Amino acid sequence: MTIHLQKEVEKLKRSILALGSMVEESLYRAIKVVVERDTALADKVVEADTDIDRFEVEVEEECLKILALHQPVAIDLRFIVAVLKINNDLERIGDLAQNIAKRGRGLAKLARVQSPFDYQVMAENVKSMLRRALQSLVGLDAKMAREVLAADDEVDRANRDVFPTIQESIRREPEHLEAFIHLLSVSRNLERIADHATNIAEDVIYMVEGEIVRHGLGGGRNS
Amino acid sequence: MTIHLQKEVEKLKRSILALGSMVEESLYRAIKVVVERDTALADKVVEADTDIDRFEVEVEEECLKILALHQPVAIDLRFIVAVLKINNDLERIGDLAQNIAKRGRGLAKLARVQSPFDYQVMAENVKSMLRRALQSLVGLDAKMAREVLAADDEVDRANRDVFPTIQESIRREPEHLEAFIHLLSVSRNLERIADHATNIAEDVIYMVEGEIVRHGLGGGRNS
Repeated sequence: MTIHLQKEVEKLKRSILALGSMVEESLYRAIKVVVERDTALADKVVEADTDIDRFEVEVEEECLKILALHQPVAIDLRFIVAVLKINNDLERIGDLAQNIAKRGRGLAKLARVQSPFDYQVMAENVKSMLRRALQSLVGLDAKMAREVLAADDEVDRANRDVFPTIQESIRREPEHLEAFIHLLSVSRNLERIADHATNIAEDVIYMVEGEIVRHGLGGGRNS
Repeated sequence: MTIHLQKEVEKLKRSILALGSMVEESLYRAIKVVVERDTALADKVVEADTDIDRFEVEVEEECLKILALHQPVAIDLRFIVAVLKINNDLERIGDLAQNIAKRGRGLAKLARVQSPFDYQVMAENVKSMLRRALQSLVGLDAKMAREVLAADDEVDRANRDVFPTIQESIRREPEHLEAFIHLLSVSRNLERIADHATNIAEDVIYMVEGEIVRHGLGGGRNS
């Protein structure tokens, strides 16, 4: 790899991590909106999404520029393609965090209900998945990426219980229907964020090991 | 562009369209599961998803190969990167069609309810969006791609009404809670498919016009 390409790749790595941090912050805040009913913070999440969207476009431009100017091959090419995809995943996570913040705003208008599932624990797990997925990207660490895959199975399992418990809660307290539907949506959005973190981890593994771990074809998870 | 690269690009176009057809078929069948309560068809949708996943991996490999061997630039490079992203969107649409089929399977076990919104009309709109997004890709037709963007706004609007009407239905017929929640999920999955079709259309526009239409930065929609 030429020194010039190496520098561009390092710069790209910093960019994608910066985007990752913005998205992590949005997720952190979105959960806080739900927990603390802080609607002013919800507005900040919505505002930040515009920056995230803009940044995603810039990262993609950077990738295209590197591909056109340096025509990388092998692991460098794989890295650029991985960043293109991870970039996409991060932007979607930003959207989903925004969804959660909006649900939190909706919840804040309603009477407090006892959530039938622990969304704070779920949110902690999802945040930790996202963090580890990004770290695995920085360190090109396939082992850490595999931990994310394992954690996703847990989140999916936890999420399977949400629907029946929410249903039970609605039956018991039909007057809080709207709040429970918002909570159901929070859990679904968290699940989707976990899926995107998993995609990122899979891309890291694929890049590092050149193995198709996606779709369980490489002995990983089934998506 | 060399003749060899031209051939590879043509082949790639056929591949991504073949994947598009598989995904369209899954969506078509998934809706049929919901409408006709045909649970055997639901199993077929789930089975087909394995093929879709495998095919997505193959298309990505094809893209990487072309990038490494031919080091395309300008519009060709943009096309390959667009296919990489569209590939991802199509695979996700396959997943979402699978979700709908599973909800249809759940609905088939329950007493029939009157849906408070017309999911058949919504499904028709979404199918038409996906079809036009794929056609815009084949024909590199930015005008048709813009129609998809306009249609997405309509789907979003229709979907906004779903939540209150479902809520009303649950209040009126709480004994059908589970069925209504399934229907709410069907509408959400359709909305997400519409979003992916929109992503595809935006990638086509970007490729054709070199304009950032995503995130409304190019005067398009706000995502």
